[in-house]
Amino acid sequence: MHMTVQQRALRRRLIGQAARGRSLFSTTRRSLEIKHISALPTRTKPSYVQSPANTLLSLQWPSPPRNVLIAKKKRTPNITQSVIEFASHIHSTYPSIHVILDNESAREIHEHLAFPVYAYDGAVQHLSDKTDLVCTLGGDGTLLRASSLFSHVESVPPVLSFAMGTIGFLGEWKFKEYKRAFREMYMSGAPDTYATLSDSLGANPPTPPTSPDDPLDKPLSYADIRGKAMGTHRSVRVLLRNRLKVGIFAPDGTRIAGSDDSYALNEVTLHRGSSPHLKIIDVYINNRFLTEAVADGMIISSPTGSTAYSLSSGGSIVHPLVPSLLLTPICPRSLSFRPLLLPAETPITLRLGDKNRGKQVEVSIDGSTVTEGLGSGMEVRVMGEDVRTKTGEWHGGVPCIVRATAGRDDQTEDHWVGGLNALLKFNYPFGDQDP
Amino acid sequence: MHMTVQQRALRRRLIGQAARGRSLFSTTRRSLEIKHISALPTRTKPSYVQSPANTLLSLQWPSPPRNVLIAKKKRTPNITQSVIEFASHIHSTYPSIHVILDNESAREIHEHLAFPVYAYDGAVQHLSDKTDLVCTLGGDGTLLRASSLFSHVESVPPVLSFAMGTIGFLGEWKFKEYKRAFREMYMSGAPDTYATLSDSLGANPPTPPTSPDDPLDKPLSYADIRGKAMGTHRSVRVLLRNRLKVGIFAPDGTRIAGSDDSYALNEVTLHRGSSPHLKIIDVYINNRFLTEAVADGMIISSPTGSTAYSLSSGGSIVHPLVPSLLLTPICPRSLSFRPLLLPAETPITLRLGDKNRGKQVEVSIDGSTVTEGLGSGMEVRVMGEDVRTKTGEWHGGVPCIVRATAGRDDQTEDHWVGGLNALLKFNYPFGDQDP
Amino acid sequence: MHMTVQQRALRRRLIGQAARGRSLFSTTRRSLEIKHISALPTRTKPSYVQSPANTLLSLQWPSPPRNVLIAKKKRTPNITQSVIEFASHIHSTYPSIHVILDNESAREIHEHLAFPVYAYDGAVQHLSDKTDLVCTLGGDGTLLRASSLFSHVESVPPVLSFAMGTIGFLGEWKFKEYKRAFREMYMSGAPDTYATLSDSLGANPPTPPTSPDDPLDKPLSYADIRGKAMGTHRSVRVLLRNRLKVGIFAPDGTRIAGSDDSYALNEVTLHRGSSPHLKIIDVYINNRFLTEAVADGMIISSPTGSTAYSLSSGGSIVHPLVPSLLLTPICPRSLSFRPLLLPAETPITLRLGDKNRGKQVEVSIDGSTVTEGLGSGMEVRVMGEDVRTKTGEWHGGVPCIVRATAGRDDQTEDHWVGGLNALLKFNYPFGDQDP
Amino acid sequence: MHMTVQQRALRRRLIGQAARGRSLFSTTRRSLEIKHISALPTRTKPSYVQSPANTLLSLQWPSPPRNVLIAKKKRTPNITQSVIEFASHIHSTYPSIHVILDNESAREIHEHLAFPVYAYDGAVQHLSDKTDLVCTLGGDGTLLRASSLFSHVESVPPVLSFAMGTIGFLGEWKFKEYKRAFREMYMSGAPDTYATLSDSLGANPPTPPTSPDDPLDKPLSYADIRGKAMGTHRSVRVLLRNRLKVGIFAPDGTRIAGSDDSYALNEVTLHRGSSPHLKIIDVYINNRFLTEAVADGMIISSPTGSTAYSLSSGGSIVHPLVPSLLLTPICPRSLSFRPLLLPAETPITLRLGDKNRGKQVEVSIDGSTVTEGLGSGMEVRVMGEDVRTKTGEWHGGVPCIVRATAGRDDQTEDHWVGGLNALLKFNYPFGDQDP
Repeated sequence: MHMTVQQRALRRRLIGQAARGRSLFSTTRRSLEIKHISALPTRTKPSYVQSPANTLLSLQWPSPPRNVLIAKKKRTPNITQSVIEFASHIHSTYPSIHVILDNESAREIHEHLAFPVYAYDGAVQHLSDKTDLVCTLGGDGTLLRASSLFSHVESVPPVLSFAMGTIGFLGEWKFKEYKRAFREMYMSGAPDTYATLSDSLGANPPTPPTSPDDPLDKPLSYADIRGKAMGTHRSVRVLLRNRLKVGIFAPDGTRIAGSDDSYALNEVTLHRGSSPHLKIIDVYINNRFLTEAVADGMIISSPTGSTAYSLSSGGSIVHPLVPSLLLTPICPRSLSFRPLLLPAETPITLRLGDKNRGKQVEVSIDGSTVTEGLGSGMEVRVMGEDVRTKTGEWHGGVPCIVRATAGRDDQTEDHWVGGLNALLKFNYPFGDQDP
Repeated sequence: MHMTVQQRALRRRLIGQAARGRSLFSTTRRSLEIKHISALPTRTKPSYVQSPANTLLSLQWPSPPRNVLIAKKKRTPNITQSVIEFASHIHSTYPSIHVILDNESAREIHEHLAFPVYAYDGAVQHLSDKTDLVCTLGGDGTLLRASSLFSHVESVPPVLSFAMGTIGFLGEWKFKEYKRAFREMYMSGAPDTYATLSDSLGANPPTPPTSPDDPLDKPLSYADIRGKAMGTHRSVRVLLRNRLKVGIFAPDGTRIAGSDDSYALNEVTLHRGSSPHLKIIDVYINNRFLTEAVADGMIISSPTGSTAYSLSSGGSIVHPLVPSLLLTPICPRSLSFRPLLLPAETPITLRLGDKNRGKQVEVSIDGSTVTEGLGSGMEVRVMGEDVRTKTGEWHGGVPCIVRATAGRDDQTEDHWVGGLNALLKFNYPFGDQDP
Repeated sequence: MHMTVQQRALRRRLIGQAARGRSLFSTTRRSLEIKHISALPTRTKPSYVQSPANTLLSLQWPSPPRNVLIAKKKRTPNITQSVIEFASHIHSTYPSIHVILDNESAREIHEHLAFPVYAYDGAVQHLSDKTDLVCTLGGDGTLLRASSLFSHVESVPPVLSFAMGTIGFLGEWKFKEYKRAFREMYMSGAPDTYATLSDSLGANPPTPPTSPDDPLDKPLSYADIRGKAMGTHRSVRVLLRNRLKVGIFAPDGTRIAGSDDSYALNEVTLHRGSSPHLKIIDVYINNRFLTEAVADGMIISSPTGSTAYSLSSGGSIVHPLVPSLLLTPICPRSLSFRPLLLPAETPITLRLGDKNRGKQVEVSIDGSTVTEGLGSGMEVRVMGEDVRTKTGEWHGGVPCIVRATAGRDDQTEDHWVGGLNALLKFNYPFGDQDP
Repeated sequence: MHMTVQQRALRRRLIGQAARGRSLFSTTRRSLEIKHISALPTRTKPSYVQSPANTLLSLQWPSPPRNVLIAKKKRTPNITQSVIEFASHIHSTYPSIHVILDNESAREIHEHLAFPVYAYDGAVQHLSDKTDLVCTLGGDGTLLRASSLFSHVESVPPVLSFAMGTIGFLGEWKFKEYKRAFREMYMSGAPDTYATLSDSLGANPPTPPTSPDDPLDKPLSYADIRGKAMGTHRSVRVLLRNRLKVGIFAPDGTRIAGSDDSYALNEVTLHRGSSPHLKIIDVYINNRFLTEAVADGMIISSPTGSTAYSLSSGGSIVHPLVPSLLLTPICPRSLSFRPLLLPAETPITLRLGDKNRGKQVEVSIDGSTVTEGLGSGMEVRVMGEDVRTKTGEWHGGVPCIVRATAGRDDQTEDHWVGGLNALLKFNYPFGDQDP
């Protein structure tokens, strides 16, 4: 376990707190409990507002968020320490907020926290009923896994993601910014909406230990917020990452047992798996036959996924704000299967044609095998999800809260460009000089 | 000159008409005249309406179109014959319509027509002031050239394009459909708008020779139209092809002499031309530095252009309804310059960096060299054009009238798929059987 | 079962022969036997001679071939008929030749033959001890399978392959040419060598039924051959297709149980199989570290295999006479892994690095999975096989007898170009004209 | 001008020497002369010997080299300084060696040398008659230019190339190794051959100033060499880089005026240049039609050139010891023109087909435009040059002297791998960790 000095200190402090708590107060015993997520109040859904000058949306809370899911990279001790630090900060500064963890993480860290945490088990349904906000601490994979917790839900809570020493396309904030990031997210909304805040905070909010140096550590009371809410123009920016809506169907047109539509953030893949034989996949767009692909497999990717498997298979790099679907073959037996980009709303069907007698494919969503052993006649039907209702409201997608520089609204492009250069080594210059 | 029997017959007939005309009526003399385009009435602009269920727009004329520009492929005798046939049909069936030709074509064919034609010279400005509709007879190149006549204008008239024995992405209609195509285009609009039609047709429209067999040859009078106008739901469909707005700037930030913004339908290209040296091109997106490309050149392409030069340079194939810009390098000195797709509204700047001491580039728009000899410090600034006004109306782009099957609204995808398969031989299957 | 009229007639005839045989001669009973391959005389090995003006080699038999293995595509009735026709021709025209079949085929067709056949079981060792010549009837896959019978042997017998209605790179002859093809192969050798032919043919060769029309049906006696042998300059041409020598090693450096070096005609592949995780493969050339590939897999291919899996993964197309190895990644997580070509004699090692904790790969040779479940530390070591001994003699490789046009020695290129165009649809022209 | 302290010191010293020389000795006047290359003794040609265990050849001088051409990167002051240092070392340590420079360089530096230099003008013929060895100081471009001085000659002198702060595929030695490199090159040959050395050195070789510290600065006398010559097994290794033999022909089959066959080290290119039109290029291999390329151009490259223009156009990377030609299209109008590799001895013809009415191409060799304005019917005929005579001796190619580690013979692969990784950033790893 690699820990910095600071982390070790923190750890001792937290363990100390917990130990003292145990011996002094009977009430603290309760604070170490793991409660069930069903005990939480119902979810608060924000709205997203488009401003004329910006391609990003503004996040607006009708009332402050209360239930925060923290998802972390597994088996990484210093990230676990960061989760403890982060959760402790939230609890002390925003006393009305509840922290949700997965069962395993809850067991791992609840003894280091001076307050109860809420946990969910397999009961993913509860998650979407209760979660106001998702915070991820890890890399792109952590966000991908967190997003998959909502892969059967249209309305994903906004996501505040912290990159923990990793470079990626999805981790927007550095962890050291967590206080500012959380405050900005928390305050994001119209002032008049927040006028009702006193109710939600209660008349006598608990008084957590304060750290007088940092205003971001001061507990937030109604008085603090009144007049300080950021308003539309100062609210945090959200990049709504479109997902793919995926359905898997048996040859007789029925859904593969229990497979409701689910959502993919990166891609859905058909692949030969360990079968040595090429698959023959009929591709339909808009319900009309496009082509018969003979290949190791086929990828349908979102723009977000354009830097994942599709990239490895030769697809172009697509900015997440281009509303589109990528159709990229995997090792096609063809010289002329160039990757395609289609409008996001295009229905695409991949059908394992009748020529695949006895052959089977694997279907994966965001890198996880969904189903194996599907034979000829099976279909995967994909479409970009709707991100606007008929009345023009934004919903759907994975709403990622984007780091913005003060006074700059177009920060998101920066981040994407940063990912291209720092992560992908895009157009990395030839090294024709001695170092 | 290769002419079919039918074409020869037609030609004789037309020449006969003209000959008779010349001998009998002094007024027909005038009909053989070439008039100047400035004599035409002012342009009628249609509007474009979006329906919820369709990604294509509906064309709506406020009053019937009167000034029709016919653009044809050059030096192709049988296409010239088709233009004569087409123009004669328009004149006899829609007597109030005026035919516009370029000077050269006007001189080539006006003696074969029983009515005067209007011609433009270099005076491109007149074209955009007067043209209600563009009809092209040829291949993709013909449409590209016709579109370039409006490359300095925001509002391009709708285009009805006929493929003359060629396969392409842009030629939507077969020439044998020309009567139906023109009628559908002509009738496209709301009934109440067309109630004012009597004014525009005049009390006593001229009576052209009729061919009783084909209702599409019957002259159209006000009475015919009343109650028959197609209405929104039957109006012709328009695919608004986004263009690129291109500006070229000297190192001091001034525009290269006389180069107002112009529009590209396919792409704008920087290329080394006949210089043997690689160019060093700094690429900025959203006014931030993205990368330094060392390459033969760089292409910024629209989705429409994705099947042109960008394709040859390794770019993906992009459906014309994906609002995007493609950034594709030409022979980059890099292993890692993967083509990029950006949102259509992204400003992109290509700058010939200071390292290009003494080196120059060529700038081309849609395959025509715009300027040569530009040195280091020069910039090409590109952006997808706006196709909606702030009040939400559609404008801009090249409005291409799309062939629709009765009762099917999604025909355009068909056409694109057809282009992929028939033209590009996309994913052409390996021929592992003897023929 | 699709049979031509001719084939049906043939079948009847053969069945009739067999039936008659059964009733008339007790000896013919024996002719219907399936004998074991071990009963055959020892193999006769040809030599290969290089002539200055030709990149192909000349085949030279020291004495005529006697043991001919016929390999056919499975489950294809009309190919089975062709095998019967072909075997009957060989037996009647070259009475001293023995036909070898695999057990299954032997059982399938021996009743349709008027003479005994020799069969092998799993006893592949016998095959290489006895087989003078391999004839394949099928497609590229059939030759690939036949070649794999000799995948543990340095010296593969020459191969005469017939394409049965398929187009491929490996099937050189059309089946209708079989008589000429076999005669040319049989006669290929220096006259003085063949002077000893009387011994091998015996004093009184059996007299088979003759078909007086076709000289190629005439039984070949010593007198026929004397003075007619083709000599060096008329001998058949051989394209020696280099194979890859492959060894698989456990982390401790020992061979994976029982895996002697084996030979691949197309390629050896490491692949993630149905594991969702990218593999981390260290690549060494000449025992020095080249790069760490993070990918779905890695292909090392011969030039012959350059039109197989390597092609699907983006590799270049390499003429079979370029002595080289291709290193082509499968879906690499990199923008800059361009396929590599190395000299044929370069030792390449692919090592599953220690970062693959718990991950496993599949190893395949020529499309057949050799071993699964290999974990980190395992190595695949590959090298092009030697095709010349130290004394300069040619050996090794798969010696494919190439169809040559009379008077033209460079036919093989033709065939390869034919494969590019007819099979791969190489540089297939855009279809910009209506058909 | 950036000079190290050492270089400045050197410069002062040299200028000082020259200044003193001018004032003291009338003979030194002569030493400052630039003499004409024709005054030099005839060239000494080495032979190249292949050893069984090594793919590289051994260089063997029949007698020590006397005439050394030094080629340097232009307009790079510190490289000019290095040339002065290098030439001075050669002169003082190997007094019988003459230094050849191009006219411009001779004028630039002869005043800084204490001995006369020989210069050539346009008279390239003299160069090949006189030059025993070429030394290049610069990057890959410098070697390319030096090689082009011998582009009309079959027998290029061996090349000792020094990389001057640049990374490349062709620059084998670091400049700081120049004394050892030159000594090893000089001594490379069989002892008995060198027994005649006393003659060539003369009875009383001039005694240059010595630097007692470094044995490599000691002047080499016959006594030194006797018994020390390196012999076959210690001789320097040579990588014979195959070139392309290129002929350009008019439509009537005659050579384009004055264009004898010339040799390309990297590639020959046909390109549209500044013409906007795609070229239609018929490709023949072995005098048979392969395909009609519609493209910006076409590259035929040697393996050495596979990391130059061919790489930018999507070609594979080919080790210089793979005897092959690469056929790589530039921006083809096709989805299915995969780059090809052909055997080195394959004749390839690129013909500007008759469909190119009025269109013209540019032909370039190694990046220099050879001829422009060639119209339809013109042909470029290419073949890998022969590098063995009929009697099996090695000749031709560009013999590059390779740096070898003591006791390791396979160093060249190292160097190539180094170029891939350090220069091309081959398979550069994604940067998924914060730096």
